[in-house]
Amino acid sequence: MAAVGRRVTIATIAEAAGVSVPTVSRVLNGRTDVSPETRDRIEHLLREHDYRPRNSRQPLRAGLIDLVFQDLDSPWAVELIRGVEEVNHAAGVGTVISAIHRRTASTRQWLQNLRARQSDGVILVISDGAGPISAELHRLNVPMVIIDPAGGVAADVPTIGATNWSGGRSATEHLISLGHTKIGLVEGPKQLLCSRARLDGYRAALEEAGLRLDRRLIEPGDFQHESGFQAGQRLLDRDDPPTAIFASSDQMALGLYEAARLRGIRIPDDLSVVGFDDLPEARWSAPPLTTVRQPLADMGGLAARTVLRLSRGEPIETPRVELATELVIRESTALFAETGGKTAK
Amino acid sequence: MAAVGRRVTIATIAEAAGVSVPTVSRVLNGRTDVSPETRDRIEHLLREHDYRPRNSRQPLRAGLIDLVFQDLDSPWAVELIRGVEEVNHAAGVGTVISAIHRRTASTRQWLQNLRARQSDGVILVISDGAGPISAELHRLNVPMVIIDPAGGVAADVPTIGATNWSGGRSATEHLISLGHTKIGLVEGPKQLLCSRARLDGYRAALEEAGLRLDRRLIEPGDFQHESGFQAGQRLLDRDDPPTAIFASSDQMALGLYEAARLRGIRIPDDLSVVGFDDLPEARWSAPPLTTVRQPLADMGGLAARTVLRLSRGEPIETPRVELATELVIRESTALFAETGGKTAK
Repeated sequence: MAAVGRRVTIATIAEAAGVSVPTVSRVLNGRTDVSPETRDRIEHLLREHDYRPRNSRQPLRAGLIDLVFQDLDSPWAVELIRGVEEVNHAAGVGTVISAIHRRTASTRQWLQNLRARQSDGVILVISDGAGPISAELHRLNVPMVIIDPAGGVAADVPTIGATNWSGGRSATEHLISLGHTKIGLVEGPKQLLCSRARLDGYRAALEEAGLRLDRRLIEPGDFQHESGFQAGQRLLDRDDPPTAIFASSDQMALGLYEAARLRGIRIPDDLSVVGFDDLPEARWSAPPLTTVRQPLADMGGLAARTVLRLSRGEPIETPRVELATELVIRESTALFAETGGKTAK
Repeated sequence: MAAVGRRVTIATIAEAAGVSVPTVSRVLNGRTDVSPETRDRIEHLLREHDYRPRNSRQPLRAGLIDLVFQDLDSPWAVELIRGVEEVNHAAGVGTVISAIHRRTASTRQWLQNLRARQSDGVILVISDGAGPISAELHRLNVPMVIIDPAGGVAADVPTIGATNWSGGRSATEHLISLGHTKIGLVEGPKQLLCSRARLDGYRAALEEAGLRLDRRLIEPGDFQHESGFQAGQRLLDRDDPPTAIFASSDQMALGLYEAARLRGIRIPDDLSVVGFDDLPEARWSAPPLTTVRQPLADMGGLAARTVLRLSRGEPIETPRVELATELVIRESTALFAETGGKTAK
C-alpha cells in the first residue's frame, strides 16, 4: 500500500494526456465536468503511472471517512459505528454511514454520491458485492479497509476481524467441559470468513475432545434472529436433539431461546446455549447469555485508525489484524444432566 | 423558516462590510482564513440582513446531512439511522453520524468539524446541550430538525416525534382492560418531552378508569436496561408490588424481565409488562414483549426529508409532527389473576 519511489505529479499526467493540469485535478476530484473520453484517458494514465496524490504532510481532503454496511438491521452495527465514530471524531473527521443492501442500483448510487462529494477512505462491512466496490475505490485512489471480509480480498487491502476460530473453539470447549457431547451448531453466512472460522473452531474442539462431528447437528443461519429460531426448531424437534447449541451470533442464540421456550425446554436446565458477539441484549436476555465477546467497537476504532493512516499516505503495520475474542460465561450454560436432555423432548 | 422578500446578495453584504465578495464567501463556507474581527463583522451583517443563500433551484452544497446523537449506545439508534440513510441515499446525499456525548469539548469539536467540511442540514437527536448547537447552526445558517426534543425548542425549528401520550395511554389502558389496578410505571429521562407525554398518557388512562394514581409506583429511568432493572427491583420488592408495569422503553422492560426472573416472578403469569419502541429485541425476548411501537425508521425518514427541503429553501408543511404509535400485543401481558399477584412475592 505504501509504495515509495519517484513521485508522479499531476503535471506528468497532464502532459502525457495532452490536457491541462486543472483537467487532471478535476478527474482526481471526481468532478463531472470532464468528457467521458478524456476522463478515461486520464484515469488510464493515473493507473499506469501508479499516481499517488497523498503524502503524510498533506491534510485530509474531504474530512470524511465512509462506513458502508450491507444493511443497517442489527444492534451489531451500532457497536461498530460507535468505535469508528469515536476515532474519526477525535481526528476531526466525519463518519458517513451508508447501507447498500444487496442491490446493484444502490451500490451504483452510492459510488456516484461518493464521487460527487469525495471521501478520504472507506471502511467496508459487506459480504456481497465488495468486488465491484473495491475495484472502483482502487480506481478513484480512495483507501479502504474491510471488516469481517468474505474470501478473495486483494492482498493490498487491509482487513480487520476477530479471532473467530479461537472463539468458536472456546465456546465449544466450554460446552464439552460441562459434559455435553451432543452439541449443535448454527452457522453464519457461509461466504464470510468469520463464519467459516467459527465452524472450524467448533470442529477443532470436538476433535480435540475425541467427539465425533455429527453433520446433522449443524444448521445454516444468517446471523439474524429468525434463522436461529428456525435452526432451533429443526434441532430441537429431532428424535435425538442436542443438549447444547453453539449459535454463531447472539441474535441467533435468542432465536434459539424462543424455539426452546415454545417447546417448554428450559435454558440452561434442559438446553445449554452459547452465542457469539456479546451485544448488549446478551446480558439482558432471560437467562443472560453465555457468549463469545468480540470487541466490535475496538474493531471499528482500529478500522478507522487504519484508514486514516492510509489516507495520509502513512504505512500500516500489518494488513491482516484479528482482535482477541473472549468467552463470557453467564447463565445459559449448565452441566449436562442425563435426565435434563431426556425431559427436554 | 421560508421567509420571502427581496433577496440579499453576497455583494450587498460585502459592500456593507467593506470587504470583497470572496471574503464573504469564505465566511459563509466556514473557512478559517478570515480574521476573527472581519468574520464577526460579516456574520453580524449576514444576520442583520437575514441573508439566505439557498433557493429551491440551488443544488445542495455539501451533499451531506448530519445526524447527531447524544450517545451511540442503543439499538434504537440503528432504527433511526436506517430511516435517515434510506432517504438521504435516494437523494444522493451522504449521512454523517456523530455522537457528542454530554461533553462540551466534544460538542465544540463537532461544531469545528462541521464548519470545516460543511453540511446541508442537521438532524439532532439529543436531549442535553441542544441550545448551544442550535444557536451555532442558526448562526451558520445550517437548517436543522430535532427528533424527540427536550422542552424549549425555538418556534422555527421543526421537531419530529411520535404520539407518545397516546402510546402511554393505550399501554396503560391495555393493562387496565386485563383487570390490573396496581400498575407501575418506569419513566424516561424527565427533560424529554416524549417521557413526559408517556407519563401523562399513563395518568390519563388511570384517571379515565377511575383508578387512583399511586406515586410510589412511579420509578425514574433513563431508557437503558440497567435503570429498568433497578426500577424493577424497587417495585417488585415492595410489600405491595404492582401486578403490571409499563416501562417507557423496551430496554427498560427487559431490565424489568431480569429483576422479575431473579425473584422467580413469572411473566406474564405473575407480572404483566408493556414496553415502548418495538425494537427488534422486543419480538425476541422471552416471552415476546407487548409494547408500543413507534415508527423510528419513519421518523428518521421524515426528519431527513424535512431537512433536505429546508436545505433547498423549500417550505415545510408544519414544524411539529408526531407520527402514530401503535400497541403491539405479544406475550408479556395477561389477565390479572388474584393468586398470581400474591404468589409473586
